Amino acid sequence: MSASRAERIAKVKKHFKTFPDWPKPGIMFRDMFPVFRSPEIVAEITSLFEEIVRETCSKVDVIVGLDARGFLFGPLLAQRLGTSFVPVRKRGKLPGPTIKETYVLEYGEDCFEMQEGSILPGENALIIDDLIATGGTMNAACSLVKKQQGNVVLCLVLIELVDLKGRDKVPAKLLSLVEYEGE
Amino acid sequence: MSASRAERIAKVKKHFKTFPDWPKPGIMFRDMFPVFRSPEIVAEITSLFEEIVRETCSKVDVIVGLDARGFLFGPLLAQRLGTSFVPVRKRGKLPGPTIKETYVLEYGEDCFEMQEGSILPGENALIIDDLIATGGTMNAACSLVKKQQGNVVLCLVLIELVDLKGRDKVPAKLLSLVEYEGE
Repeated sequence: MSASRAERIAKVKKHFKTFPDWPKPGIMFRDMFPVFRSPEIVAEITSLFEEIVRETCSKVDVIVGLDARGFLFGPLLAQRLGTSFVPVRKRGKLPGPTIKETYVLEYGEDCFEMQEGSILPGENALIIDDLIATGGTMNAACSLVKKQQGNVVLCLVLIELVDLKGRDKVPAKLLSLVEYEGE
Repeated sequence: MSASRAERIAKVKKHFKTFPDWPKPGIMFRDMFPVFRSPEIVAEITSLFEEIVRETCSKVDVIVGLDARGFLFGPLLAQRLGTSFVPVRKRGKLPGPTIKETYVLEYGEDCFEMQEGSILPGENALIIDDLIATGGTMNAACSLVKKQQGNVVLCLVLIELVDLKGRDKVPAKLLSLVEYEGE
């Protein structure tokens, strides 16, 4: 009998590593990079993402990946779905005219950019990242898509830190593969 | 008749965009992100990389990708080859004990890190990035692999800026798909 989706996700979760008190005391850092040590687990994550997208979205034109860890999963999923991939990057990394969106960090603020014309008006965009914490960067990415008259049909992440309530800040449907809550 | 490798590479090159005088006067910035607008071209680049690796390397255990644009190609190639993928990141981005290597920038210096145990002694590593310019970051990545007693069997990049002679700084075999020289 083939494994259920819950069993497949539980197997993925076993590959994460937790670092208590990193990068500072009180933070439980969830490191997802160890999944990339296993090509089978990377293929499984990509398959799970693909299944979720096909069940949830009638049409995706473009996948938007957040610098830098969204770059790991975006092209893999775009290849499976046969869509284009475009980046969201930190300030000053993209050449040519860009659309900008400032977002608030714990101390101060930062700025995300997309190249003008990354999204065409009316296009359906899926935004992907490895993890959602407070939701500030995912919210900024949604704004960048909307400023180009695109539709955010789904925000997709590998890990959701539920206690931080990041999904409340995201003005679009958000799905995560693995949730951490009160752990 | 199927296209020759030179024809296939010429087709890939058409998707790059050049931005003169960016990020500062005198620099011709080669933007490879437009390739990701076409899933067919991404598949073609991955196939070309795969062919080159299979012709050149008898055994690859692990692909090492440089933050951030090496993250775009590393997992795609690792999936094709059935290998693991591990990251090289800028200072302070990776949790746990790390191996460090400082490299010189135009003004000042920066530091690359890998997590301890990313490479096991004797493993064959392939280092991937989007572009080689002066070669400083690729050289630092080679050092990080060697500090863990790994072998760098190949450094692989999409674009080589030949005039900057970066390959002279790389203590390993280096192959590029597209060269820019005096353009």
